[in-house]
Amino acid sequence: MPVDTLDCLRAELDSEAGQVCSDIDELFEGLLASRDDGRDILFDAMRHAAVGGGKRLRPLLTVAAARLFGISRDRALRAGAAIEAIHVYSLIHDDLPCMDDDDVRRGKPTVHKAFGEAAAVLAGDSLHALAFEILADQATHEDPFVRSELVLELARASGPNGMAGGQMMDLAAEGQSLDLAAITRLQQLKTGALIEYAVEAPCIMAHLQPDARRPYRGYARNIGLAFQIADDLIDHAGDPRAAGKRTRKDAEAGKATFVSVLGPDRAEQQARFLVDQAIEHLGGHGSEADLLRALARFAIERNH
Amino acid sequence: MPVDTLDCLRAELDSEAGQVCSDIDELFEGLLASRDDGRDILFDAMRHAAVGGGKRLRPLLTVAAARLFGISRDRALRAGAAIEAIHVYSLIHDDLPCMDDDDVRRGKPTVHKAFGEAAAVLAGDSLHALAFEILADQATHEDPFVRSELVLELARASGPNGMAGGQMMDLAAEGQSLDLAAITRLQQLKTGALIEYAVEAPCIMAHLQPDARRPYRGYARNIGLAFQIADDLIDHAGDPRAAGKRTRKDAEAGKATFVSVLGPDRAEQQARFLVDQAIEHLGGHGSEADLLRALARFAIERNH
Repeated sequence: MPVDTLDCLRAELDSEAGQVCSDIDELFEGLLASRDDGRDILFDAMRHAAVGGGKRLRPLLTVAAARLFGISRDRALRAGAAIEAIHVYSLIHDDLPCMDDDDVRRGKPTVHKAFGEAAAVLAGDSLHALAFEILADQATHEDPFVRSELVLELARASGPNGMAGGQMMDLAAEGQSLDLAAITRLQQLKTGALIEYAVEAPCIMAHLQPDARRPYRGYARNIGLAFQIADDLIDHAGDPRAAGKRTRKDAEAGKATFVSVLGPDRAEQQARFLVDQAIEHLGGHGSEADLLRALARFAIERNH
Repeated sequence: MPVDTLDCLRAELDSEAGQVCSDIDELFEGLLASRDDGRDILFDAMRHAAVGGGKRLRPLLTVAAARLFGISRDRALRAGAAIEAIHVYSLIHDDLPCMDDDDVRRGKPTVHKAFGEAAAVLAGDSLHALAFEILADQATHEDPFVRSELVLELARASGPNGMAGGQMMDLAAEGQSLDLAAITRLQQLKTGALIEYAVEAPCIMAHLQPDARRPYRGYARNIGLAFQIADDLIDHAGDPRAAGKRTRKDAEAGKATFVSVLGPDRAEQQARFLVDQAIEHLGGHGSEADLLRALARFAIERNH
């Protein structure tokens, strides 16, 4: 692709990424307006975690994939907000003292530092329920079969056979010497399943059968792993300001990562290979897939 | 009602209650078969909490209400299992050291005592997701509109405007002197919303519009409060063996309860009044509502 086309795509990606961030913030602000009946701390804690932070990678994927099938941006954003609600709840619980015990997240105090542990547990639980409330609402899609399918697949992606299961594997892996296959499996559950769902959701909205969703899930699986390697490289490089959170904690906890197993150079090569593979899955599409291609190409660099 | 009819109903209720307990156990055993990949602790923790304990009041309500509309028992049990998964997850998180800090639940060690705090957080989160996976599955109902509506109302009943919100109000109420209206509102969110949903779910399965669901929700609201008063009376009486958990903790925490505000005698009168009101809501029904009537009549006694 010519360089000026690449520059142009990158500008479009940056613009869309910024727009998605402000749209998701606006959606959460609307859903999480404060209550004045003893639940003010709960809603403040939810907003603290959900509004104004993060790259919104998952909703951006959903909005970009929606372009493939002519799904409206508003619908994609609602699905994206549900996915982000799950992601944010998992970060709140993951940061708790009994889990990763982190004080800083997205450049701000973690929820339990700002509001106490009990409010953090309940804010996570509340965002978890909110995700399913958003998806099951008619505003997300007029076809109840689509809504029900969106719920089913998000529950699978986030539950014990998805994200939560991956977090358990991650805890169990401390001090263990995992090989590449085991780390890949762990990451596919812990972060991959939700990223895959972010691309699958627009496929469901477009009434694609499970078989027809496969290339898009393949794209998502590849970039999910590529993003994880990029994250591991940032953690390895160890600049907490760039990361917006504590770094090198994997090494301190004796956790095996892609970087600890492959070394930084081969890990970076592997990330680039995964990006190429991801883009190949989009071969059947024309310019409507350009944003997904740009996302794959640039997102691992944007982290550096 | 003649005494022998009452005895007969009580026997039927006891028999159905026992059957629901074993059916729900069987459903959870099937859903939570152990994994051998680092997630064994997670599934063990989920089974520890979800199998073989509790009165299964909510699934029993769902099965009893399903009789009103000719909804099959299997479907009612699946909805009941989803509700129980939410209830159990809330107990696991509620027992955590940062919340109520309880060591015993349903006569067994709490999940964090038996498996550690991190596994307890993740087991709660996993059961939470599982609830929505169960409801959105075609096995629960063939009509996707019903599945989607079941999800929407459960998310509302369990989220920040339902159960989780009520738990936050409960935490905020420590040391406060709440009046009867405030305690009622708190309990309607904390425990009432999920009990109401247990009766609403079969209404949704029977395609009842929200207006037509009102008497059944009214029944549930009344018995929900009656059960809470019965619970407060047990806690006040202070026999941990009868309760299966630590008692008198509300008094120790300086929390206002129905019993602390009304005194035990008036609280018991109020519970009986609520039961009568609950049964009045079923006035349009014949013998198909007998189990719900018996449940209202006897359930507050079964606790003593």
